[in-house]
Amino acid sequence: MKRVQVVIIGSGPSGLMLGHILHRAGIDTIILENRSQDYVLARVRAGLLEQGTVDLLRDNGLAGRLDREGLVHRGMALAFDGERHRIDLAGLSGGKVVTIYGQTEVTRDLMDARAASGAPTVYEAEAVTPHGFDGEAPRVTYVKDGATHEIACDFIAGCDGYHGVSRASVPAGAISTYERVYPFGWLGILAEVPPVDHELIYANSARGFALCTMRSSTRSRYYVQCPLDDRVEDWPDDRFWDEIRRRVDAPTAEAMVTGPSFEKSIAPLRSFVAEPLRFGRMFLVGDAAHIVPPTGAKGLNLAMSDVRYLAEGLLEHYGERSAAGLDAYSGRALDRIWKAVRFSWWMTTMLHRFPDQTAFDQRIQEADLAYLVSSEAAMTSLAENYVGLPV
Amino acid sequence: MKRVQVVIIGSGPSGLMLGHILHRAGIDTIILENRSQDYVLARVRAGLLEQGTVDLLRDNGLAGRLDREGLVHRGMALAFDGERHRIDLAGLSGGKVVTIYGQTEVTRDLMDARAASGAPTVYEAEAVTPHGFDGEAPRVTYVKDGATHEIACDFIAGCDGYHGVSRASVPAGAISTYERVYPFGWLGILAEVPPVDHELIYANSARGFALCTMRSSTRSRYYVQCPLDDRVEDWPDDRFWDEIRRRVDAPTAEAMVTGPSFEKSIAPLRSFVAEPLRFGRMFLVGDAAHIVPPTGAKGLNLAMSDVRYLAEGLLEHYGERSAAGLDAYSGRALDRIWKAVRFSWWMTTMLHRFPDQTAFDQRIQEADLAYLVSSEAAMTSLAENYVGLPV
Repeated sequence: MKRVQVVIIGSGPSGLMLGHILHRAGIDTIILENRSQDYVLARVRAGLLEQGTVDLLRDNGLAGRLDREGLVHRGMALAFDGERHRIDLAGLSGGKVVTIYGQTEVTRDLMDARAASGAPTVYEAEAVTPHGFDGEAPRVTYVKDGATHEIACDFIAGCDGYHGVSRASVPAGAISTYERVYPFGWLGILAEVPPVDHELIYANSARGFALCTMRSSTRSRYYVQCPLDDRVEDWPDDRFWDEIRRRVDAPTAEAMVTGPSFEKSIAPLRSFVAEPLRFGRMFLVGDAAHIVPPTGAKGLNLAMSDVRYLAEGLLEHYGERSAAGLDAYSGRALDRIWKAVRFSWWMTTMLHRFPDQTAFDQRIQEADLAYLVSSEAAMTSLAENYVGLPV
Repeated sequence: MKRVQVVIIGSGPSGLMLGHILHRAGIDTIILENRSQDYVLARVRAGLLEQGTVDLLRDNGLAGRLDREGLVHRGMALAFDGERHRIDLAGLSGGKVVTIYGQTEVTRDLMDARAASGAPTVYEAEAVTPHGFDGEAPRVTYVKDGATHEIACDFIAGCDGYHGVSRASVPAGAISTYERVYPFGWLGILAEVPPVDHELIYANSARGFALCTMRSSTRSRYYVQCPLDDRVEDWPDDRFWDEIRRRVDAPTAEAMVTGPSFEKSIAPLRSFVAEPLRFGRMFLVGDAAHIVPPTGAKGLNLAMSDVRYLAEGLLEHYGERSAAGLDAYSGRALDRIWKAVRFSWWMTTMLHRFPDQTAFDQRIQEADLAYLVSSEAAMTSLAENYVGLPV
């Protein structure tokens, strides 16, 4: 039976990042991914990196292309009641910024680094299954090209997302889950048009939420809140552009350059947390344990801080023979996760129209926004969360 | 027919304060109150004054006893998860403080000042009714000792509370109301025992909200959240003391001095706003137009900022013959009202247990509190609202 120190399930950014840090420290890993490499790379995801995520990539020698191509944002805007208000993120957070760089690009850079390192990744690994993680000798089995493989290891890292096998392998009585499903979705498009502004615009309007963001200086990403039962076919490009222009302030609507979309999809919004993050010798990381709505773009960033904590624990284990870091992993990560879940929930609640919202609820939402842009303290609180709370 | 410049309906603190400022400016008023003076003085109300309320009383020569007897608080505490966290209100708000001084005492000082001024107040005025405020010649009628009286005036100030006749006299189509009724009440007691701490303690516990406050250094006011259908008879003193000690942190519970209560009552919690605040020549002030839950103690303070805005408008009208201040009254006051309604709603939501709260909602509440006491920005936002936003 083959043996590695750490089996990583899932080759999304968290699995690849963990693998990269461990490889650099001389810890041997294998990554098992049930999808193909092309499939993983084709997934469209968020693209806003916190300062701490950029620092993690840079500290690990992974920021070459990011530093060339990423768009640094020192602010963002809230549009409501016909006006646009800029939040000076850098000025309010002691100089921290966010960087626009697609999750797909992060994944590609990490895949390139893994390929260059020679560390193994098995794509299209079927029936990946963790075993014995509650004991001293965990194993992972999988099927590849019809043959069953078994790998013995010290630890299993479950980096396989919300639908992955890792969390599903935990006995129900050992795990607690917390969930909020929001009563709307986000209809998003990608179009080869210049973004309406060089920074993001989050809009609250009587017609619902809208977000103007981008992938690059020539590629725009736009979203509108929509009913959950809408289908992509209900939204030809013309209808989309008409709708988003009615949800933003007039100067923004006027400045918006429209064009044919080349990607269009509807995503539901959900908050989800599973606790704890450790089950014997298996650890859950990123989306395998928690989902946030995209408002505030915390998903990838939270996965990266999980990776940082877990990598520290594993390095301590192998380097200093200390269990302290691994024992602390679940608590440290969950403390930061709940704060980000809180922030994402708050931004979502403040910016969307809810079907069951009373007139009072709506006025409170308006007062929330009016207070926010009138108070340096409140804007500082938004900024420190948006650029990322300390790791 | 008797004539005054301004008829003030209601002799609570807002009516008396408005009357005092107008009298000092040489504007003649009459106050009509349907209750007796003793009844008004016997009403138990909140007792926490914002810096701006203290300033208003002091600037009008009404702070003699307040400055001697009021307790200045430079901080407050949040208790949750077994710990007590002090919020340094003064340090976070540039030196602003709050002052403990019962609303009953404010009312008494204002009544004494009005009596000394010789300006008229009619108590036990029955069937008070405003007329013609949508035209140029408003009047107010009332019955006293069986005789009907009619007073002509320039303006009517509706300072007569939530159940008063002023708002009720406005045609339904001219007014919009916004309301939230909370699914619990506050059971409050007064006891002649020293307060457990020299500052207030707001507690969130699995058993519900509790508040430790005071009227003086020898008189304590304590509250616990209770179901709306509880009756005072369900809560003998022993049960009350047992319950509140289970809702605060252990050192607070241990330090609490108990004793027989001499006042005990259950109050529902409600947020309510009526808009606008002006109907021709009648203005709504304080509780006549808005109610907040007691969490954060904004009710009296908000009434006082309404009075300040309206008095400014009336002084401009009579002094400079300018309508600008009166025209701006409703908008200026509502801007501050909605921010205080938002703050009271937020504190109430963060600190109470709700019957329909999901496990996710509860964890968000815990994360809200954990984030709050970890962030100087978030504590600054709390502090600036608690000591009172700028008038």
